[in-house]
Amino acid sequence: MSKSQFGVIGLGVMGKSLSLNLAENGIDTSVYNRSEGNEAHVVSSFLEHNSSFKNIQGFTNIDQFVASLATPRKILIMVKAGAIIDLVIDQLLPYLSANDIIIDGGNSHYNDTQRRYSDLNKNGIHFIGCGVSGGEEGARKGPSLMPGGHPQSYKLVAPILESIAAKDTKGNPCCTFIGKDGAGHFVKMIHNGMEYAEMQLLAELYALLSTSMTNEVIAELFTSWNNSDLSSYLLEITIDILRKKEGDDYLLDKVLDKAGNKGTGNWSSKTALDLGVPANIMTSALFARYLSAFKTSREQLAKQLNHKKSKGLTPDLKALENAYRMARILNHHQGFQLMQQASDVNSWELNLSEIARIWTNGCIIRSQFMEDSILYLKSSNDLLSHPSIFKTLETTEPDIIHLIQSGMINRVAVDTFWSAYNYWISMTTDRLPANLIQAQRDYFGAHTFERTDAPLNQFFHANWDSA
Amino acid sequence: MSKSQFGVIGLGVMGKSLSLNLAENGIDTSVYNRSEGNEAHVVSSFLEHNSSFKNIQGFTNIDQFVASLATPRKILIMVKAGAIIDLVIDQLLPYLSANDIIIDGGNSHYNDTQRRYSDLNKNGIHFIGCGVSGGEEGARKGPSLMPGGHPQSYKLVAPILESIAAKDTKGNPCCTFIGKDGAGHFVKMIHNGMEYAEMQLLAELYALLSTSMTNEVIAELFTSWNNSDLSSYLLEITIDILRKKEGDDYLLDKVLDKAGNKGTGNWSSKTALDLGVPANIMTSALFARYLSAFKTSREQLAKQLNHKKSKGLTPDLKALENAYRMARILNHHQGFQLMQQASDVNSWELNLSEIARIWTNGCIIRSQFMEDSILYLKSSNDLLSHPSIFKTLETTEPDIIHLIQSGMINRVAVDTFWSAYNYWISMTTDRLPANLIQAQRDYFGAHTFERTDAPLNQFFHANWDSA
Repeated sequence: MSKSQFGVIGLGVMGKSLSLNLAENGIDTSVYNRSEGNEAHVVSSFLEHNSSFKNIQGFTNIDQFVASLATPRKILIMVKAGAIIDLVIDQLLPYLSANDIIIDGGNSHYNDTQRRYSDLNKNGIHFIGCGVSGGEEGARKGPSLMPGGHPQSYKLVAPILESIAAKDTKGNPCCTFIGKDGAGHFVKMIHNGMEYAEMQLLAELYALLSTSMTNEVIAELFTSWNNSDLSSYLLEITIDILRKKEGDDYLLDKVLDKAGNKGTGNWSSKTALDLGVPANIMTSALFARYLSAFKTSREQLAKQLNHKKSKGLTPDLKALENAYRMARILNHHQGFQLMQQASDVNSWELNLSEIARIWTNGCIIRSQFMEDSILYLKSSNDLLSHPSIFKTLETTEPDIIHLIQSGMINRVAVDTFWSAYNYWISMTTDRLPANLIQAQRDYFGAHTFERTDAPLNQFFHANWDSA
Repeated sequence: MSKSQFGVIGLGVMGKSLSLNLAENGIDTSVYNRSEGNEAHVVSSFLEHNSSFKNIQGFTNIDQFVASLATPRKILIMVKAGAIIDLVIDQLLPYLSANDIIIDGGNSHYNDTQRRYSDLNKNGIHFIGCGVSGGEEGARKGPSLMPGGHPQSYKLVAPILESIAAKDTKGNPCCTFIGKDGAGHFVKMIHNGMEYAEMQLLAELYALLSTSMTNEVIAELFTSWNNSDLSSYLLEITIDILRKKEGDDYLLDKVLDKAGNKGTGNWSSKTALDLGVPANIMTSALFARYLSAFKTSREQLAKQLNHKKSKGLTPDLKALENAYRMARILNHHQGFQLMQQASDVNSWELNLSEIARIWTNGCIIRSQFMEDSILYLKSSNDLLSHPSIFKTLETTEPDIIHLIQSGMINRVAVDTFWSAYNYWISMTTDRLPANLIQAQRDYFGAHTFERTDAPLNQFFHANWDSA
């Protein structure tokens, strides 16, 4: 057989789907998976089930796999993020030559990607850390791809990656060079942080609406929203989920309320904490997942409670719709601000409008608002600086207050909405009580403070306990 | 001169104060500071200013400093946390012998302490990571000390550390062996996270009360609270701060509202995120500091706002007092839960009641509630499991709702109170909407879900998009 144009290591769900996507797009592809223990037949059964694709070769031997690839070799690693990536790279290195290209398509931490990028550079190997979003279906039919590394490295694989990526409304690939070293994985990480928040906003709306509406009626309401500027992939699948029946019952009602997480949401919040960016919306969503895990304690404490839920307050649906719009805008704003801050710190020169564009299809947070953001972010990276967005937020303030009050009356935790509200209020308050914090810090720790009536960066200390 | 019993490296504010505290308690002490550049005269001027203490020897030469100490040598390092600690240890090592004891009294990250503990063990050196709280005044007159390492190492320095520590109401030292390796620094880190929250709760109350009261009237209100079960050091200094005049004006009014932070609050929240503990109260407080830093944007956005602040709603002061009590209980609960979780993960066997006891004096978060917590934590590490605490929280729920509503009406961000409220609501809700999150994750990522009508740890997958 002739040499393959592209190699894929790892035939998990994502690796399989991407391999088929490549093959279907006419790219001769070699696939490799180890064949130990449980994985003995992974490669052979993959080839058997997909025998209609004549341009896929399978290997369980890494040197034969590498030998099957045309040079410079282009190898996508699709294995679980973490130390295994380093192992696979170490295994590969003896067989590679200068100018070969390794792509890590897993959810690696961008700091690991920065380290690997720099290590492999020394070996003359191109390394691309590539965020891949869209789940199994996206990988098979067209994911959103976020490659980072060196622009020259990207050029060598651009035709292949762009051919398998989703396409935006204008037919352009949802794949663009993000920035150097770990930029691609960073941007994917923030995508997932924003995704946590988008999911939790829907969960809180569902909790609030459930106090007075059936799943079917909620689905109808969400369908009407999905036919507006609020439409999104996550809203769309939520409608399917609300409607899914199992016999006479809704399946959703039988799903246990303990949410899992795979780490990238955690990373996004920790990165925000390190960068000094108040990304409180995605962090609330993460804490909500953590809280849900305390199911046993929650059940015990709920039993102890004498408090009765108030019934009968049906929230104003138009207000909820507006509040949802507001919270989503602010979630996107915080996500983009987080990327801007990281871009400044790491000299990535991120193009936020392009990032919004490649997120309009193939990825989990694709939506009409993402589409609208392409234009907004062309003129300013700060969504709040757009007068029409500011106006929307300002006029919607009473609606989000209504939502929060409905939550309090119904005893429904709407923390992610609150976080959006709180951020909005704080960012539009010229004087916050941080002066007291500074005074306290100066009192007990002599940390000094700045004054409103003195130039910035002049620091004062006071003897606060003397009259 | 005879050999000193104890050595201190680093004559910054904390090092100086601790040295004087040691000397005053009859402990012959050697002090060392480097004498380069700005620090040329640090040692000589310290000795000169404190010539009344005859039991202090000063050195600018590390080998002479070490030689001046009785064996086994006991050396406290009080320099800025970070890589400098490693440098100082490397400098010291050639002069030390097996069984000498190094104490790091800075705000080191507990992971660094774990690494140093293990490295120094190999050299036969005892290493103690010791949290020190109380600021300059505490260090001088009696800090709260949180030593971690090996219990045998602690025994060697216990008499000295306990003699300089603050004393609790029964006269016992606010110093106890915390746990192995990094436990002491971990506990100090959580202390600071809890401190951030305690400070921000007061800041939010101040912001809310300021809409209708003068600083003096707020100080009067806080004084009445400080004469109750709500009394605390931070409340006490806040009263001083509110009353501090500069000419005819309140000094507080002239302090710039941009809060700083030195990292330990950030570490606490990141650790909570890693441990899966929803410590949202301290995290809100941290984000509030971050938000305050965006002063220029806030001023610009506030100018754009057409919204007028509602005036005239004077909050019910009794409700605010109850809400403050509730939020403080929950903040303490979260802090102790975080320590319990870390204790389980690291096999530290933390004694939370003892930790509460050594926090009743000398440290920044000392308070009547901390005093009360000694007993609560003796019977259960989970404050919420105490019927009287549960009852207090339950009956106070309408009061914290009142506070939040007052905040919304007055456009005052009360995020830390909200976080306490949200945590309470969530923890007393048996069914949260995390079932929707799980369904969404299963829809797009085949992450599977558990069911309410099946045993735990059985995982299901559904085709959600089929009718």
